[in-house]
Amino acid sequence: MFAAESLVKTLLNQGVEVCFTNPGTSEMHMVAALDRNPDMRAVLCLFEGVASGAADGYARMSGKPASTLLHLGPGLANALANFHNARRAKVPVVNIVGDHARDHIKLDAPLTSDIEGFCATVSRWTGNVDTPEQISTLAVEAVRQSYGPEPGIASLILPADCAWSDIEPEVIEKTDFPARHQVTEDEITAVANKIRAAKNPIQYLGDIACHAQGMAAAGRIAKKLDCRVIFETFAARISRGSNHFSAQRLNYFGESALEDMKDCDLLVIAGSKAPVSFFAYPGIDSVLTPPGAEVMVLADVTTDSAKALADLADVLEANEAQALQPRSQAPELDREQPLNPGFVGLSLLRHMKDGSVICDDATTSGMGVFPWLENGPDHDWLCLTGGAIGMGMPMAVGAAIACPDEQVFALCGDGAGAYTCQALWTQAREKQNIINVVFANHSYLILNFELARVGAGDPGPAAQAMLDLSNPKMDWVAIGTGFGVPSVSTKTAGEFDDALVYALATPGPHLIVAEI
Amino acid sequence: MFAAESLVKTLLNQGVEVCFTNPGTSEMHMVAALDRNPDMRAVLCLFEGVASGAADGYARMSGKPASTLLHLGPGLANALANFHNARRAKVPVVNIVGDHARDHIKLDAPLTSDIEGFCATVSRWTGNVDTPEQISTLAVEAVRQSYGPEPGIASLILPADCAWSDIEPEVIEKTDFPARHQVTEDEITAVANKIRAAKNPIQYLGDIACHAQGMAAAGRIAKKLDCRVIFETFAARISRGSNHFSAQRLNYFGESALEDMKDCDLLVIAGSKAPVSFFAYPGIDSVLTPPGAEVMVLADVTTDSAKALADLADVLEANEAQALQPRSQAPELDREQPLNPGFVGLSLLRHMKDGSVICDDATTSGMGVFPWLENGPDHDWLCLTGGAIGMGMPMAVGAAIACPDEQVFALCGDGAGAYTCQALWTQAREKQNIINVVFANHSYLILNFELARVGAGDPGPAAQAMLDLSNPKMDWVAIGTGFGVPSVSTKTAGEFDDALVYALATPGPHLIVAEI
Repeated sequence: MFAAESLVKTLLNQGVEVCFTNPGTSEMHMVAALDRNPDMRAVLCLFEGVASGAADGYARMSGKPASTLLHLGPGLANALANFHNARRAKVPVVNIVGDHARDHIKLDAPLTSDIEGFCATVSRWTGNVDTPEQISTLAVEAVRQSYGPEPGIASLILPADCAWSDIEPEVIEKTDFPARHQVTEDEITAVANKIRAAKNPIQYLGDIACHAQGMAAAGRIAKKLDCRVIFETFAARISRGSNHFSAQRLNYFGESALEDMKDCDLLVIAGSKAPVSFFAYPGIDSVLTPPGAEVMVLADVTTDSAKALADLADVLEANEAQALQPRSQAPELDREQPLNPGFVGLSLLRHMKDGSVICDDATTSGMGVFPWLENGPDHDWLCLTGGAIGMGMPMAVGAAIACPDEQVFALCGDGAGAYTCQALWTQAREKQNIINVVFANHSYLILNFELARVGAGDPGPAAQAMLDLSNPKMDWVAIGTGFGVPSVSTKTAGEFDDALVYALATPGPHLIVAEI
Repeated sequence: MFAAESLVKTLLNQGVEVCFTNPGTSEMHMVAALDRNPDMRAVLCLFEGVASGAADGYARMSGKPASTLLHLGPGLANALANFHNARRAKVPVVNIVGDHARDHIKLDAPLTSDIEGFCATVSRWTGNVDTPEQISTLAVEAVRQSYGPEPGIASLILPADCAWSDIEPEVIEKTDFPARHQVTEDEITAVANKIRAAKNPIQYLGDIACHAQGMAAAGRIAKKLDCRVIFETFAARISRGSNHFSAQRLNYFGESALEDMKDCDLLVIAGSKAPVSFFAYPGIDSVLTPPGAEVMVLADVTTDSAKALADLADVLEANEAQALQPRSQAPELDREQPLNPGFVGLSLLRHMKDGSVICDDATTSGMGVFPWLENGPDHDWLCLTGGAIGMGMPMAVGAAIACPDEQVFALCGDGAGAYTCQALWTQAREKQNIINVVFANHSYLILNFELARVGAGDPGPAAQAMLDLSNPKMDWVAIGTGFGVPSVSTKTAGEFDDALVYALATPGPHLIVAEI
């Protein structure tokens, strides 16, 4: 028995049941420990950005942390971009990073690096195992820290010689972790008085306030006060569909977002903070709260914002649910039309099952799909919280493990998909019910808009080339097939619809190229 | 005109002529500046790890920095693993990272992150542009810092509003940068006296001491004193072939490396430091200098180690070159034999041209190719300096830009190749003469050895699964084709030989799968 095994057993006792991993030599005793404790589901990823994205997707759908097991600084480095997204999603992750044996670190061997420095960029807590005796205690602390009160990434650095030590620390039993902060009665009353008095209040939601319970409470308040409900452009998880209250998504571009906020005199915030634009533009203010509007934070991201909204609704005697819209009836499909993101949304509306999970990593195209499903089948829509593209396919891996009975979708731009296409291999290996839709516009399309918007002038040929992915065009059917996922290309609304029907009926992962 | 343009013009004046990039909204004015200054060759990469690996390969072959242009913290994060390799290779890189506009940073928008923290993990210098007026001055400082005296990554953080500012700083003309340290006559004499007196000295080489001039000088000393010459297991660039002195590569596994060092009483180091094992193993010492041997550093990595060896040879009156081995005659090819790395080496010996560049990211398989070319066609062999797999295909991109008239090879394990396969797209886009050989053993084979060596016990099915890439097998012909590179699979010595002949004769990139 090695000390590593007490780490795995202790994590299992805390409810950490999945490990997304790409191990190396310094993690071999963790591999052996996973081997002996099969209750911890070990999921191999061909690239660490897949592991971190999968941990994010798992946590968004399960509400609890997965573990990641990564190989020294460079392995962690590859995971950082999707950990950035996870950090912005405010989800718990227990990130285990192997290190060289303690005596080896000072020798500065080729793989030695500043692991704590890498961890610090994305972690809310980093623990360094100094002795094997600490392993179980630090494992529990990592889980505790991952839960917050602001959930996030808790990193645990594990030197190889601590992992392989014979000194086996006690396996720690199930521990209780502190819940999120609660909003007091007085605070609720203060917000209730303000929102009653406001002429044109907006409830602005993020984090778990966008889950079903929070949305329902916001809907009750909206019904009572006839006020707007807007959620973050890139919320971590939005419960949507005809059985959910329909709130409005804040527009991406600042001028449209300002229009969304127009005439507001009070912003009541649950699970977020006052909205700002995604990027800055010359001569345009980045702050999106209208001048003169008061900002009241009912609940920040350390707080149970869904419960706070429900309490607020109760104090407001907002007992009646907002009348739900009937389920959208899909218009007839004009099968011969050239495909566009709207037709993808329409086909999803026609065929998607209740309970589906959509991982949206398709910047411009995702915006075209989104409106179609507002009153469609019930689903969770997971956004690119941190703006680091390459999250869709990995996140789908994690969501599918958290929700094995649901259909998961990854909507990816071709630019975004290229970042972490290795996730397809894990989808095939784990036989996951994931339908990957790759929108092939052969361009970083959003940047064509942005280039003009930031006032960088008319793009010449070199600038155009830097936003263009058509030379050569990626063949996504080949790439998907290469990683073991059945793949098909579609160019018309009808072809996409047929491909979707087939994929939904055929277990395992699929990739559908939407040539748009 | 924007301030960004003065940055590009100033870099051009310092001899920085290539920019490997994946830009985003915050870098659009740099894109416009590149557009207007086509002397700076802009090379688009589908993933930032390709850009950093390419900058490394370019610098190893050209001796000067390329620039990288990356999108905020997450874009940089994706580049860090190959920057780790570049840091270990001691090569110059000017790494430009876009940041939000200065007023936008404090708003903590989704893409905001600790860019300085990311930079610090791999950079020898980080500069933050605080005002547009500083841009040119900091650009020159970045180039200066990249050159060392220990060459490395100089990172420059460029806020979008500084880049788009109308205040255009002066374009700075060509600047002289300090050369590497020189070893004094007294120091050379001291080493000469020691090495003359030693019974069994070893010259231990790394860094530029492994280039042609350093190797030749070491060969003269070896001829004069009949002493061993050993170079680092993972040197950045080794000049090899029948027109070069043949030194010995230090073995990877510690016990074999100790055997290489046996009976040595004096280690004279040029461009390196005393060798240590790559990983630690239970109960085995990581230090590879034999007990009792004296270590003398003739030249460390801040120093012109090649010149130091030449000076030492002069003082030792080692005027005669070591007799070179005749060029190896390739044995006849047994075409029907199942392919293995040795046959790949044999085919390279048969057909490779002088001047070729080999980027080795094929851990176990690369070791099987290496010996075949010792006295073959002249070539440079570039190693995985930092142990972060996923360097081969990206590095080949950069090497091919530095050496447009030479044939470049990327030797990749299938595990390593999966990390940064997006590099194939840039190879196709730039029509580079790169032959990618993917050794498909469908396994993290090295880890099968390491699992046993670290004493983690007999692997059970879960452990075996974590080292196994055969479920599903990646189809590399499909992946290569998908990214626009003509690809073929080979299973016998003859099939590989034919594919290599075809690829050498046909311009542009190729991918040959070596099923082993």
